[in-house]
Amino acid sequence: MDAPAKTVQMNLLFDLYGQLLTDRQREIFILYYHDDLSLGEIAENIQISRQGVYDTLQRVEQALLDLERSLGLLAKDQRRNQTLRTLEGLLREMREHVEHTQVRDEVLLRCLKEAMDAVEELMTE
Amino acid sequence: MDAPAKTVQMNLLFDLYGQLLTDRQREIFILYYHDDLSLGEIAENIQISRQGVYDTLQRVEQALLDLERSLGLLAKDQRRNQTLRTLEGLLREMREHVEHTQVRDEVLLRCLKEAMDAVEELMTE
Repeated sequence: MDAPAKTVQMNLLFDLYGQLLTDRQREIFILYYHDDLSLGEIAENIQISRQGVYDTLQRVEQALLDLERSLGLLAKDQRRNQTLRTLEGLLREMREHVEHTQVRDEVLLRCLKEAMDAVEELMTE
Repeated sequence: MDAPAKTVQMNLLFDLYGQLLTDRQREIFILYYHDDLSLGEIAENIQISRQGVYDTLQRVEQALLDLERSLGLLAKDQRRNQTLRTLEGLLREMREHVEHTQVRDEVLLRCLKEAMDAVEELMTE
């Protein structure tokens, strides 16, 4: 995996499992992955050795990968989002179809609006 | 919380987080919560003391509650299922509406069927 892809994956895993890390692990992860500091800068910042920072990051990355292997929340979220996008597409198709028939059907338009709001809620939670 | 409610909650949490327990913890949980054995029966079954079984169950229950406090997957699932049921109700309402108009609209009926399949998939995953 190239570096940007790894960063994206680590950030996604951190969003899902970060609460299971220690405060110190979270702090170092955020300084490295969110604030984009170098190992040396982090070491200086929190007063531990550069090697200590490196080891912590290695352990955190492994812990996040192990959690995903056990719980699979990222894979599940990605499957779910795919299905939600399919659902959104179907609702849009129905809405366009209803809007382009000569008689606007207000019951269908109301239901479609509420259904789209529900899909939106599921996508953003 | 009464005993049946606690059992339901523990089983739901176990489904979500069981993979983070040790093999031995999972084994004892299943004997107690799924197979409904008594502490004494479990102790005899796996050759540890009754107190050992009791302590393990206490630790497992606490671990499951702590995981839910950190990740909140059960609460999230319950909110999501509520929204999915709302969505299902809206799709049914639309289908009945379309089926009771004089001209059956095949585009809408096809989209509604596919959308219901997608909701079904999201509910059972």
